[in-house]
Amino acid sequence: MNPINTQIAEALARIRREKPLIHHITNLVVMNDTANVTLHVGALPVMAHAVEEVAETTRTAQALVLNLGTPTASRVEAMFVAGREANRAGIPIVMDPVGAGATPFRTQTGLRLLETLRVAVVRGNAGEIGSLSGAGGRVRGVESVAGGGNPVTLARDAASAWDAVVTISGKQDVVSDGAQTWGVDNGHPWLTTLTGTGCMATTLIAAFAAVERDYLLAALGGMACLGLAAELAAGRAGGPASFKVALFDRLYHLSPEQLAAGARLVRLS
Amino acid sequence: MNPINTQIAEALARIRREKPLIHHITNLVVMNDTANVTLHVGALPVMAHAVEEVAETTRTAQALVLNLGTPTASRVEAMFVAGREANRAGIPIVMDPVGAGATPFRTQTGLRLLETLRVAVVRGNAGEIGSLSGAGGRVRGVESVAGGGNPVTLARDAASAWDAVVTISGKQDVVSDGAQTWGVDNGHPWLTTLTGTGCMATTLIAAFAAVERDYLLAALGGMACLGLAAELAAGRAGGPASFKVALFDRLYHLSPEQLAAGARLVRLS
Amino acid sequence: MNPINTQIAEALARIRREKPLIHHITNLVVMNDTANVTLHVGALPVMAHAVEEVAETTRTAQALVLNLGTPTASRVEAMFVAGREANRAGIPIVMDPVGAGATPFRTQTGLRLLETLRVAVVRGNAGEIGSLSGAGGRVRGVESVAGGGNPVTLARDAASAWDAVVTISGKQDVVSDGAQTWGVDNGHPWLTTLTGTGCMATTLIAAFAAVERDYLLAALGGMACLGLAAELAAGRAGGPASFKVALFDRLYHLSPEQLAAGARLVRLS
Repeated sequence: MNPINTQIAEALARIRREKPLIHHITNLVVMNDTANVTLHVGALPVMAHAVEEVAETTRTAQALVLNLGTPTASRVEAMFVAGREANRAGIPIVMDPVGAGATPFRTQTGLRLLETLRVAVVRGNAGEIGSLSGAGGRVRGVESVAGGGNPVTLARDAASAWDAVVTISGKQDVVSDGAQTWGVDNGHPWLTTLTGTGCMATTLIAAFAAVERDYLLAALGGMACLGLAAELAAGRAGGPASFKVALFDRLYHLSPEQLAAGARLVRLS
Repeated sequence: MNPINTQIAEALARIRREKPLIHHITNLVVMNDTANVTLHVGALPVMAHAVEEVAETTRTAQALVLNLGTPTASRVEAMFVAGREANRAGIPIVMDPVGAGATPFRTQTGLRLLETLRVAVVRGNAGEIGSLSGAGGRVRGVESVAGGGNPVTLARDAASAWDAVVTISGKQDVVSDGAQTWGVDNGHPWLTTLTGTGCMATTLIAAFAAVERDYLLAALGGMACLGLAAELAAGRAGGPASFKVALFDRLYHLSPEQLAAGARLVRLS
Repeated sequence: MNPINTQIAEALARIRREKPLIHHITNLVVMNDTANVTLHVGALPVMAHAVEEVAETTRTAQALVLNLGTPTASRVEAMFVAGREANRAGIPIVMDPVGAGATPFRTQTGLRLLETLRVAVVRGNAGEIGSLSGAGGRVRGVESVAGGGNPVTLARDAASAWDAVVTISGKQDVVSDGAQTWGVDNGHPWLTTLTGTGCMATTLIAAFAAVERDYLLAALGGMACLGLAAELAAGRAGGPASFKVALFDRLYHLSPEQLAAGARLVRLS
């Protein structure tokens, strides 16, 4: 077995044992789903986005999710307050630039967050990452239209530029810390028929980052968890909604042993 | 077969082929459900309600949903900005006056939107439409208590007054453009046991309006899709939640051929 | 049969007959779930949180839920406006201090609401209730870490201090009006694997309080309903998400007779 498979399985076991608290400042579409995904993987969710309480909430958490969907000026302000607190306290930030590239507001907010904060992991689709990195991504709504070339190069260059682990979701997910780049071959086409599966991936990465300070491993663990749960759920799916039920059920039951055996991680560069 | 059945089936095929982007400014209760319904019928959702980005988001979309549930002053302001942009760009607006008649804030907002914007389709229950049109509807919470008389007359008169297609949900849905009025006999009582099924209907109409500029056809297509999927789902329902899962699954699998064969559209006037 | 079982069963029958309107000012994570739970138990939900309309909305309702999750300054302001209107009109307020104890903003907001308003029922976990009552509760995110001692004493003392019925969720739920304290032994561990089951309990209590002015009975009825539906659903659960589907289905079908026979209520003091 790939030694990295053992490492992500051990991280999953730690999530279940330590029940880290994951603070989400996230979009209104996926709040319920990502709170449930946090619980199902074994962590605890807290959703708080008022400037009156985000710094304190972040201080009690083991990871912070900054998700740019359905942004408003006040939620963006809260992201900066929480993000600075996370940096002060050494709490990893996982950022999801939903829709970056689709509007200047989202692109600029994403860029400002990356300039101001030390971010552990950025997860997006190729269009979002390419739009932020200047590689020429294009986004329509929240869908990637063009990613600015080869995803391996895109992820590696963005990771180097931002000094962060970059994860690009796609048929093969690509994860890079600038030095190493890996592919995750888990997943299922049903994931593309549901809203918020990218946000769920981001949440899972945050749960891993809360217990695993090698953020490349954390990103690989989160992506493999979602992809493997999707594979296990696909056989029970009669459509997208029954797939979602099965996906959440499988994620809850996913054991470290299953993850170690089922994660398909390949070194790309 | 009714020629109108063929036409709405062709529109469904166009949605699946063209994947139009549907911009929603909508209520917080149904965001996840309507995003998923948009995907399941074959279109793409984008949810954005900050004034900083709504105009740009609308410009990239093929239809705009303005849904008045859980209104706030800032979301209402965003509706006017997005709506004016949609009118400038020729993008159809589908409006759902959730709770109009229940509070002056919702009634006044609905009326101001109708006065300011050119709206393609208005969909509501009889109480909401009757409250806005002055026919004397009454609404309790978001439920119709009284619709101000005969729904055929109500729909036709409101359509003429607003120069829009008006859709009134009910046991028989009624759709009018002022000149023609049709009934949609699809549907199932399970739909009334779930929150947000009216909002789902509005989203489906918007997906049709994005590819079909005859908005009477678009409204008939959206209503028939939801009603027919509900009929197909009913046999798998052990209660409202398993009905919802089956409804979304069936909507995803609903073929143009099934829609052509199953839509029950009747000319009423 | 325990006479109190007959009384809560009669209250459930009244909910189904009278369809009371339940105004929610609630958190963004659970809005869809609590709207559906309201419908499934037989009541009608309305979600409105703009200061422009909350007073009017409350006036048309038979109960008001004030849920402190994902608070913002404007939603909190709306709670005070709606709460004062409810007190003027004699409409019962059911308060859920989500996360009280976790941040000063939530604790202070909870305390101010309790000082300003006459509240019929407060439902929370032991940490939340203990934090507000001064008994020394501790909360991490939205989870109880410590409840400040014996839950029977905690509930009774808080009920006396606030002149309200206090409900503490736990393995055994504890409900007190200061004079009498009861335990509810219904429930299932699956409830702890889902987000928002506490909020669902609060909504159910509000539906009961809308038709039953003995708020101790109302709280017992709401807690027993959720717990019994969970027991009935557990056999169909393959994981948390299929449990949730079964829970909502069972709640919808739960008859007054089943509730009378299945509620396990025990007098504790």
